[in-house]
Amino acid sequence: MPSSALPTYADVVDAARRLEGHAHRTPVLTSRTADAELGCSLFFKAEHLQRMGAFKFRGAFNALSRLDDAQRRRGVVAFSSGNHAQAIALSAGMLGMPATIVMPHDAPEAKVAATRGYGAEVVIYNRYTEDREQISRTLAQERGLALIPPYDHADVIAGQGTAAMELIEEVGPLDVLLAPLGGGGLLSGTALAVRALSPLCRIYGVEPEAGNDGQRSFRSGQIVHIDTPRTIADGAQTQHLGALTFAIIRDKVDDILTASDDELVSCMQFFATRMKTLVEPTGCLPFAAARSHKNVLQGKRVGILLSGGNIDLNRFCQSMAR
Amino acid sequence: MPSSALPTYADVVDAARRLEGHAHRTPVLTSRTADAELGCSLFFKAEHLQRMGAFKFRGAFNALSRLDDAQRRRGVVAFSSGNHAQAIALSAGMLGMPATIVMPHDAPEAKVAATRGYGAEVVIYNRYTEDREQISRTLAQERGLALIPPYDHADVIAGQGTAAMELIEEVGPLDVLLAPLGGGGLLSGTALAVRALSPLCRIYGVEPEAGNDGQRSFRSGQIVHIDTPRTIADGAQTQHLGALTFAIIRDKVDDILTASDDELVSCMQFFATRMKTLVEPTGCLPFAAARSHKNVLQGKRVGILLSGGNIDLNRFCQSMAR
Repeated sequence: MPSSALPTYADVVDAARRLEGHAHRTPVLTSRTADAELGCSLFFKAEHLQRMGAFKFRGAFNALSRLDDAQRRRGVVAFSSGNHAQAIALSAGMLGMPATIVMPHDAPEAKVAATRGYGAEVVIYNRYTEDREQISRTLAQERGLALIPPYDHADVIAGQGTAAMELIEEVGPLDVLLAPLGGGGLLSGTALAVRALSPLCRIYGVEPEAGNDGQRSFRSGQIVHIDTPRTIADGAQTQHLGALTFAIIRDKVDDILTASDDELVSCMQFFATRMKTLVEPTGCLPFAAARSHKNVLQGKRVGILLSGGNIDLNRFCQSMAR
Repeated sequence: MPSSALPTYADVVDAARRLEGHAHRTPVLTSRTADAELGCSLFFKAEHLQRMGAFKFRGAFNALSRLDDAQRRRGVVAFSSGNHAQAIALSAGMLGMPATIVMPHDAPEAKVAATRGYGAEVVIYNRYTEDREQISRTLAQERGLALIPPYDHADVIAGQGTAAMELIEEVGPLDVLLAPLGGGGLLSGTALAVRALSPLCRIYGVEPEAGNDGQRSFRSGQIVHIDTPRTIADGAQTQHLGALTFAIIRDKVDDILTASDDELVSCMQFFATRMKTLVEPTGCLPFAAARSHKNVLQGKRVGILLSGGNIDLNRFCQSMAR
């Protein structure tokens, strides 16, 4: 399948086969306290317990494992606010490929260190003044590297869809599923899986209030570009959806909701104190939206994608002191 | 069985039957990173994901469910540095019994609030100047309450033993098992289960360096009393082992090790960043000891009891900033 064609559910199924034995089949967490607070049955897919701490491993490994031998020898380049970088770095390491990662100057230290720890070369750029896509394209051309973008790529989207696929395989059909929305890779892959496996389920993307380009794109019918939003949800600081992700989201998703940074902090606190688990701000988006829309969730079976857990402990503690 | 007789493995089996459907069968966590660091296979029994956030629920529920109807109507009193209090409060609520809990003035706020949240009456005392046992005995006499001590009680010990029993049932025989040591309830119950299910396994208790009364008791052959130790491991700030727990520990445990507060902080950090999970300082004791004794663990199958996860987020963040 060319990477510009729209992926389908069959591609998610293929991705699941490629990931078997390489990605973790992450657990589904439940919480009586959360269920009681919201008046519904919540199923938290714990992708923060995925390899390298986020669902991004799924898309990255799926995309890299489809490259041919010649390309594998030359290597791969990726740009990312963090988790995609680590995912490509780890996947490349596992597949014996060299990797170059273009990362913003203000990415969490833990993410930069982990990316280097997986054996990748890190190239730093300024998030507010430089164009990471341009830098990456230049590197790809000069060095003959395969450029794997963080979300607008059919194999990446198909890989991300395997998380929701596993969730529904494990707990059965859902009434509602909420996923974080940055560039749309997770949400669009999720939509492919959910429309096939639980057709009546309503699907919502949730993005930071400070950067609601996805919501505006969804409602206006064309991709809205914004400046890099200032939010603690560093995994969702994207400026626009992708052509592929938008096409799928527009077709298969029910609506896009938003959550404020304060709501994300409150969710991080809830997860830490009541569920003893550390979720990064971006991963808190769906639960935050579920909390503020609990009136329409009464009695329902609700899936929540906890997308990642890679937050620097200093940042976590600063957030808790807000 | 009178509460002054030594419990046996048969009592652990009975406790497991009583707990079925009431206690969580907690997951066993693993970590490639931890295995690589220590050179062994680690199995973390996640009792911080137990109901109310600690193994203490097991012993408390087991003890309360053995009381007769008349005593259930009068109610129960307990003293505790925190987790036992919550365990008795929650168990009493589940069994429809009134509960009075005697707690130290410096117990983590989250624990006091949670105890009241379960419907118990909380009586505060000064940890450094007052005798909690005396206060509790007076309350028991005046109000006809059953006094359930935090560790030196046969039904409490038998209940705590069910955690190690589940661990071995799930992962098979172990070479080494490490458990936190405060008053000895968890360690003695663990020893009953392990000696029956994995007879060749070496069993170690781990207590705070600042309060090594257990180690001194074990090595001298008689119960050593100390002043309340100053350590961040608030669940192990006990002044002495119990008569029952010491008798079992002396007979069935291989040795008592210690860990410093700095080592506990480093473990909390590891659990949070690498395993995305929040373990309280006391719960970090066994992994801290495993890290400092890794030379003798090479290639072994090592069980680690993560005893609890009830740490105030402010305290957690203060620890991280040490």
